[in-house]
Amino acid sequence: MVGGGQGSFIGAVHRIAMALDQQVELCAGVFSRDAANSRATGEKLHVDPSRVYTSYEEMAAAEAALPADQRIDFVSIVTPNNAHFGPSKAFLEAGFHVVCDKPMTLTLDEAKELVGVVERSGMVYALTHNYTGYPLVRHARHMFRSGHMGTVRKVLVEYLQDWLMEPQEKLGSKQASWRTNPAESGIGGALGDIGTHAMNLMEYITGDPVTSICADKSIFLPDRQLDEDVNALLRFQGGGKGVLTVSQVATGEENALRLRVYASEGAISWCQENPNVLEVSRHGKPKEILTRGHAEYLSAEATAATRIPTGHPEGYLEGFANVYMGAIEAIRRHIAGNPMKTAEYNFPTVYDGLRGMQFIYTAVESADAGAAWVPMPSTPQAN
Amino acid sequence: MVGGGQGSFIGAVHRIAMALDQQVELCAGVFSRDAANSRATGEKLHVDPSRVYTSYEEMAAAEAALPADQRIDFVSIVTPNNAHFGPSKAFLEAGFHVVCDKPMTLTLDEAKELVGVVERSGMVYALTHNYTGYPLVRHARHMFRSGHMGTVRKVLVEYLQDWLMEPQEKLGSKQASWRTNPAESGIGGALGDIGTHAMNLMEYITGDPVTSICADKSIFLPDRQLDEDVNALLRFQGGGKGVLTVSQVATGEENALRLRVYASEGAISWCQENPNVLEVSRHGKPKEILTRGHAEYLSAEATAATRIPTGHPEGYLEGFANVYMGAIEAIRRHIAGNPMKTAEYNFPTVYDGLRGMQFIYTAVESADAGAAWVPMPSTPQAN
Amino acid sequence: MVGGGQGSFIGAVHRIAMALDQQVELCAGVFSRDAANSRATGEKLHVDPSRVYTSYEEMAAAEAALPADQRIDFVSIVTPNNAHFGPSKAFLEAGFHVVCDKPMTLTLDEAKELVGVVERSGMVYALTHNYTGYPLVRHARHMFRSGHMGTVRKVLVEYLQDWLMEPQEKLGSKQASWRTNPAESGIGGALGDIGTHAMNLMEYITGDPVTSICADKSIFLPDRQLDEDVNALLRFQGGGKGVLTVSQVATGEENALRLRVYASEGAISWCQENPNVLEVSRHGKPKEILTRGHAEYLSAEATAATRIPTGHPEGYLEGFANVYMGAIEAIRRHIAGNPMKTAEYNFPTVYDGLRGMQFIYTAVESADAGAAWVPMPSTPQAN
Amino acid sequence: MVGGGQGSFIGAVHRIAMALDQQVELCAGVFSRDAANSRATGEKLHVDPSRVYTSYEEMAAAEAALPADQRIDFVSIVTPNNAHFGPSKAFLEAGFHVVCDKPMTLTLDEAKELVGVVERSGMVYALTHNYTGYPLVRHARHMFRSGHMGTVRKVLVEYLQDWLMEPQEKLGSKQASWRTNPAESGIGGALGDIGTHAMNLMEYITGDPVTSICADKSIFLPDRQLDEDVNALLRFQGGGKGVLTVSQVATGEENALRLRVYASEGAISWCQENPNVLEVSRHGKPKEILTRGHAEYLSAEATAATRIPTGHPEGYLEGFANVYMGAIEAIRRHIAGNPMKTAEYNFPTVYDGLRGMQFIYTAVESADAGAAWVPMPSTPQAN
Repeated sequence: MVGGGQGSFIGAVHRIAMALDQQVELCAGVFSRDAANSRATGEKLHVDPSRVYTSYEEMAAAEAALPADQRIDFVSIVTPNNAHFGPSKAFLEAGFHVVCDKPMTLTLDEAKELVGVVERSGMVYALTHNYTGYPLVRHARHMFRSGHMGTVRKVLVEYLQDWLMEPQEKLGSKQASWRTNPAESGIGGALGDIGTHAMNLMEYITGDPVTSICADKSIFLPDRQLDEDVNALLRFQGGGKGVLTVSQVATGEENALRLRVYASEGAISWCQENPNVLEVSRHGKPKEILTRGHAEYLSAEATAATRIPTGHPEGYLEGFANVYMGAIEAIRRHIAGNPMKTAEYNFPTVYDGLRGMQFIYTAVESADAGAAWVPMPSTPQAN
Repeated sequence: MVGGGQGSFIGAVHRIAMALDQQVELCAGVFSRDAANSRATGEKLHVDPSRVYTSYEEMAAAEAALPADQRIDFVSIVTPNNAHFGPSKAFLEAGFHVVCDKPMTLTLDEAKELVGVVERSGMVYALTHNYTGYPLVRHARHMFRSGHMGTVRKVLVEYLQDWLMEPQEKLGSKQASWRTNPAESGIGGALGDIGTHAMNLMEYITGDPVTSICADKSIFLPDRQLDEDVNALLRFQGGGKGVLTVSQVATGEENALRLRVYASEGAISWCQENPNVLEVSRHGKPKEILTRGHAEYLSAEATAATRIPTGHPEGYLEGFANVYMGAIEAIRRHIAGNPMKTAEYNFPTVYDGLRGMQFIYTAVESADAGAAWVPMPSTPQAN
Repeated sequence: MVGGGQGSFIGAVHRIAMALDQQVELCAGVFSRDAANSRATGEKLHVDPSRVYTSYEEMAAAEAALPADQRIDFVSIVTPNNAHFGPSKAFLEAGFHVVCDKPMTLTLDEAKELVGVVERSGMVYALTHNYTGYPLVRHARHMFRSGHMGTVRKVLVEYLQDWLMEPQEKLGSKQASWRTNPAESGIGGALGDIGTHAMNLMEYITGDPVTSICADKSIFLPDRQLDEDVNALLRFQGGGKGVLTVSQVATGEENALRLRVYASEGAISWCQENPNVLEVSRHGKPKEILTRGHAEYLSAEATAATRIPTGHPEGYLEGFANVYMGAIEAIRRHIAGNPMKTAEYNFPTVYDGLRGMQFIYTAVESADAGAAWVPMPSTPQAN
Repeated sequence: MVGGGQGSFIGAVHRIAMALDQQVELCAGVFSRDAANSRATGEKLHVDPSRVYTSYEEMAAAEAALPADQRIDFVSIVTPNNAHFGPSKAFLEAGFHVVCDKPMTLTLDEAKELVGVVERSGMVYALTHNYTGYPLVRHARHMFRSGHMGTVRKVLVEYLQDWLMEPQEKLGSKQASWRTNPAESGIGGALGDIGTHAMNLMEYITGDPVTSICADKSIFLPDRQLDEDVNALLRFQGGGKGVLTVSQVATGEENALRLRVYASEGAISWCQENPNVLEVSRHGKPKEILTRGHAEYLSAEATAATRIPTGHPEGYLEGFANVYMGAIEAIRRHIAGNPMKTAEYNFPTVYDGLRGMQFIYTAVESADAGAAWVPMPSTPQAN
């Protein structure tokens, strides 16, 4: 693991997600740029001190030098955005599989370069757009992909939080500090942190790509440099239209990632805060409430992503673990000499990561032009 | 009453709304342009046949010719949009108060002219933006107007229906027929029919006017000429931003008028489909669920607009009747020789009607320019 | 109208319910035992002072003495329970139809006697168990009656309020005063006021009568004589079991009348506080959310009881008005010389009223025996 | 681990719950009475084959014979009810701590004996009433224990499922097979499986013990011997009353464990299916919606039991893991020579297990007497 020292939020999440299914053991890491923090974290996590490193370069080199049956199988990168590209490249080139948090890189150029690095390396690269791991998200995708919903006409996607309503970065929050700092986060604030999730979730489910964006961004608190709030109009390849709205200053909201898609044959509504429920509407029929765990009526994709019976809620960590499950499967297959094609991956890939960076750059370009329409570039597809 | 014959939806609604509080008796009308329909409707409603007229001009003249204690006190106009201006003008100029359905007129020019007619007449003119009649809408307005919410940062307003997903206008629906016909509806489809409600509700509650609009409109069904679906970005005078989205082809939606306002000191969420509930959020505090009928904690405005105890749901008709209650109060005061100022009216006025028409024209101009930003004109205020 | 003077709650409700469909005009009444209150109320309601009476006996006699085309068609009795029987009997015997609030009488003996009075009179008698007027309640009944639900296995019915948590009867509330006084209310407190509604709703929908009851009643506030809270086990004729729980001291509850029925082929859930929704569950299938106004999938009974489109909420008053609509239809048929059979009535009858009184007496007998099982007597059926 | 082989549900849950916080490694087990199943499961779980045993007696002996730093620290017992007592006793007496699934034993006598075994052993014994692990359940307990709610007046507790609506035990379900078999389950069906959870949750939160029970049980499917459905009236020591209702044939229900407590100063409502929300009501105030993760307003107990930010749902597995966290803490303290008192345990104890068995026996005695009132015995308290 790279990152995840004291003060980190997402590091602990990754550790639970990988432990949950008892497939992964944490053996090595550089948990912080601060060596003392790294050491202390390693100790707390029962990592052999000889494998607690002080830089990712050292770790990649040292692990690569270990015998094949002793070295790590893959690395999880859970650092701020500005420390995604370097470690990813280093580990991939040293022959390690990589699981990395989103957004994929600090800049669009890094993202484009990383696509090449992954392709050349032949290694598995997984990006933790964890919301794609929820069983009912996978079922919704299945409904759209299998033609049960018709053509997308209207998409309303929101990701609303309020945790940056206070100037947390001035109050000692490490989380807020790097997330509001362009040097560490890149050109997107809410856009990068949660907008990329909203964008990814929508396209993951509908399969209908955004073709242009008109984004209006706002900063309400003094001294902030990055967008706290964005409202954007969307147009889709299939002729539909949409709205994407994200905020980190939406008073009273917690992690309200909500997606509604209205298509010619039906509509879905899903909300991350109660993810075990998927509402499906058909014109002139009673709305249906699908719940996780019902193999009788859910798709195999949804059923495969669940661990416990219906009515026993699964949450964020289980969804996150499902992304890991997919990555681990691909890694096992690679190790077994029978690698999967990228198009077979059951988790977000480097291409999804590139698309996220394209989204940030397109939205910022639009906003900087006074909320003008800007075409969304196409993204190479996984083969 | 002008309009409201067989096949009308809103005519029956107006009749219930005015009957509910037992203050109004229906004595005269021209219920349809079709004389037979008008006569049959009159008979069914127990209206004296001598006061069932064949045109609004005839009715205005004949009623004005009756002795003061026998003629109608006011007229309700419940016709399609193209038959709002004529009757309104005729009755106002004949000395009758007017209650009219929205949008106020067919064209923006008519709206501007009607403002003058109302001002010169000195009569009461009420526009039935009925959603302003809900008690918790009035309480929400009170919260913003009294300074308990701070500055508006983000507004998300939606009005979603799906009843035009089928080509109802080809299947014999009178409602769909005029609503999809520009000659009867004007230049706005969903914009005029439900967008004006969404716009009015938002500004009614927040008091923070829209200053510019970027609207993207869509038509999905063949042969439709008017917008079925609109997504719009909004900017507000106070520095906030917003999204307005309306649709009459949003699969599975019924009358989902939902408003969320995120302000610096708190947020509200309200939905017309369960109007007895108002959610109020404050950063770092539990969300509060306010329910209609609680005089202990609701404002006097909210309490005055309610008839039954909390927990016994009030609905659309009661909200509609509250607009009538306000109009009747103003009419009584006028009759009593003690007229209210327009600024004192507890119901939407001719200025709200003008603003609605300005909204339609601004949004259409934006959409026709490819969803470009267009400033929203200011609107004269009631005195 | 008998009752409904100042300080009354239900009187105003009845007046709105009867006015809403513009079929009824209030022409006469004795609004209070206090003559001044009665006069003042009559004046406020624009009733001819010569028809504002000082006692029900006087009113029944005077109205009967009027020419047939001038006298009232029916009387609404909206007094406390101890003043139901006398006026009902007097008006029925004077040849007037009667609409009366529930519970039907003060005592079980009065109820039994009233059955005979109604039968002998041949007049229409309607009891305002208003919750049977909700469209989705009627649809639920249709589902059970038409065999789509199978055999009832478990019923959970609740009616929870908290308005008697404070000693309102000591604080000047007329409502609380008579409802906590056995001389005016009878032997049931919450049992009579809301328990009878819960019992009636359950049997109305399922058609499966209660055969025995084990009821545990409680009084928490000092000086109260009547039950504030009751929990009861139920057994049904069809072999199912159930729970009925009512309270007027259930902190934070408003008018939470909720019914869940689990049957062999499906289950329903309905709550009065959001009455436009009916949840229907089938084993192994997604839950369905039925909403009022959908003629595509709701029964004719449900569709006939609705006035406005789906998504525009209807509430308590509209449901109440539906009971009046049914009574008015029966009264019209009677006047037209073509009376309906009681079994055809689309509203609660004198037999429902008797059953309510039997329920109160059975539950009190059970509770007084320390919550022992007591058989519920059978009730004569309407023909 | 004892139990948890193929076909087990709860074994996998325990394994996830113990793995999640990366404190526990599974090193040994007897996963099934069927040696092949046990071996196969052990292999799948990467357990050293030399520590996959064929009986619990063998395992207890063999592990005890290992050097202290190589043997297991504690054992998890996840077998059917008839195989709880034997292994518990064996491991406790062999000097191992025990975590066991509920209900604690097959019979009440076993339960009483086990109390003595635990007391004499001085080892840690934890019972996985996992619902006590939810953060908002702990907060609710805090609210009652700290005097913010006043006196309990009414409790409504439900645990409703429908998975036994089909005769699963005849269709090859191992789960259904033992749960419907008195020889493996004991005298309670739904009572033991879910009724004990409902009872435990209620008393855990309110601290107000049940003093008598009147329980009516039902069997609807042919050939079933154990209760499928129970409705029970409850009386509490503090003077309040309640209803407990459980079912495994409640059409359409999944794992609907819902608790509502109405007390003199406030009320709470919580449902396991959306456990991140706790509703708190106060008379005459807006209802408050408390959500997990808000250290600003939640108690330390609630905050300590949470891993991720508010709005990111935690579920069943995290709650379950919290019970393990508590047990692990007590075990660590014991190993460190500084054992906690039972009264300090932050998890259900052997006394809770005894109380659960007393509850089953009391309810069955009541039901067998035709649903008569039976006193609930008192239970020794932890010191």
